[in-house]
Amino acid sequence: MAATSTDDLIARARSGDKRSIARLLSAVENDEPSAPAVLKALYPKTGQADVVGITGPPGGGKSTLVNRLAGLYRETKMRVAIVAVDPSSPFTGGAILGDRIRMQERSLDDGIFIRSMASRGHAGGLARATARLVNVLDALGNGVVIVETVGVGQEEVDVVSVADTVCLVTVPGLGDDIQAIKAGVLEIADVLVVNKADRPGADETVRDLAQMLSLAKDPSWKPPIVRTAARSGEGIEQLVDAIAKHRAWAEESGERTRRRREAARSEVLTLLREALLRRLEGRIGDARLDAAVSRVADRRLDPYAAVDELLRD
Amino acid sequence: MAATSTDDLIARARSGDKRSIARLLSAVENDEPSAPAVLKALYPKTGQADVVGITGPPGGGKSTLVNRLAGLYRETKMRVAIVAVDPSSPFTGGAILGDRIRMQERSLDDGIFIRSMASRGHAGGLARATARLVNVLDALGNGVVIVETVGVGQEEVDVVSVADTVCLVTVPGLGDDIQAIKAGVLEIADVLVVNKADRPGADETVRDLAQMLSLAKDPSWKPPIVRTAARSGEGIEQLVDAIAKHRAWAEESGERTRRRREAARSEVLTLLREALLRRLEGRIGDARLDAAVSRVADRRLDPYAAVDELLRD
Repeated sequence: MAATSTDDLIARARSGDKRSIARLLSAVENDEPSAPAVLKALYPKTGQADVVGITGPPGGGKSTLVNRLAGLYRETKMRVAIVAVDPSSPFTGGAILGDRIRMQERSLDDGIFIRSMASRGHAGGLARATARLVNVLDALGNGVVIVETVGVGQEEVDVVSVADTVCLVTVPGLGDDIQAIKAGVLEIADVLVVNKADRPGADETVRDLAQMLSLAKDPSWKPPIVRTAARSGEGIEQLVDAIAKHRAWAEESGERTRRRREAARSEVLTLLREALLRRLEGRIGDARLDAAVSRVADRRLDPYAAVDELLRD
Repeated sequence: MAATSTDDLIARARSGDKRSIARLLSAVENDEPSAPAVLKALYPKTGQADVVGITGPPGGGKSTLVNRLAGLYRETKMRVAIVAVDPSSPFTGGAILGDRIRMQERSLDDGIFIRSMASRGHAGGLARATARLVNVLDALGNGVVIVETVGVGQEEVDVVSVADTVCLVTVPGLGDDIQAIKAGVLEIADVLVVNKADRPGADETVRDLAQMLSLAKDPSWKPPIVRTAARSGEGIEQLVDAIAKHRAWAEESGERTRRRREAARSEVLTLLREALLRRLEGRIGDARLDAAVSRVADRRLDPYAAVDELLRD
């Protein structure tokens, strides 16, 4: 994309043209040459959207929940964007492809934009790529950006950390598997959702979660536990309320500012690192780097000595 | 650790003292000031061990399988080390704690060393920290190092990629969840294991996997499918055979060299990046960095412009 076509594209994307939005997102996601220009142009308009993260173990009905949430936000006439990330599936295809197809039905609504993210091939990591897509969608005038991801690993935690409000979705009857979630739930979740709450065992799950919450470290925000049954739509309004309450608290308490500062620091440091490495790689040259790597691979040189050598000049 | 005490520690660790091994591993895992000295000293002795990766979704009986594997390798008098990583559990405690306790029983065997890895707080990422622990255990004379991790996400893939041979463990009856694994299985697995193969549905699982394999891209190695029942010990010998066959193929085909070169390149580039960033942060200073970050967080400056400004001098 040349400079003028980037401007054109942004203008068309602002007017709601989905194809232009998709092209902007691809440029940013794949770190195309135009990515810095796109992000620079859009950056001043970011920081407006409510960014809602949805995560939890597989089988929690998160896609249906996200569909319902998006539908409810749409009733208030807000434009809504969904970024669906699936780190559990680093491969072509992936587990939530079926869910995505179901979600595309919703995207017939012109006010909802859905983007699936491949989880591979993002220089600087998946979380960072997600944050940039969110920035673009935010700047393009979406009132709400929902980031959906499957899993409770470190990568999912990182991805969902771009959100102003993180909802962790569990279901009754996860058995021992809930232990993995429970132990960490207090650290990342702002709102707890027990979905499929019409199933047996919901009371137990709620009780277990409540017990964990009583040990929370930060007493200034106690994550509410919301029961939903996404398929029937039950509890979705309460979830929207809970998200709005957290948002208000985060604004007032300075938590929102703190998170955004953290995000800014992380992005600046990453860009610094990349800029430096580009400069350096140009100076060192591929041949010298390859030679050093070969000697390290053959155990004739240790990696620290290799770096000392490469940096000597 | 001062220089002399590092040498002492390495000598004691070489003689098999578990406490000294544990201290060396902690130094490397936590990137203590002595870490570069430890890794430099041990690096020339690395590259000897067979590194076996075991991954797969939760509930596959991987810990029992790893116990059995370690036991069988021990019968050939080899010293065996196990590194248990749980990226699904970025929090204190974690899901496989119970498994770990069961594994400690095996560690009464003096020839088996078991190390659990916390999944948080590793500068440069979990996979890199794992690779370094493996290097230490390799250099200390373990004939086999088993890296066990739970999950099928990108982070688990990265962690297990340090292995010469990757075993992906599934179980019958995972239902739709197997889709996530199946789609990617061909890309990372060298050996497929259907554990709990005495359960109903094993034939179906094997057939499904075989069908996926028929689409494999690399025709030079076709991952065998091994049925095991780790609890009773069934199939473990076949698994050891399959791992040995892959190892022989990897040696002959150059795949082993290719993977080790890749690992060396990644470590050298990471160390380069870190060295540069340290130099730069010292030069820029915290105050200037903080000021730029604040302006970025407030949307008064975009991150690219911030980096240009910081690098200008």
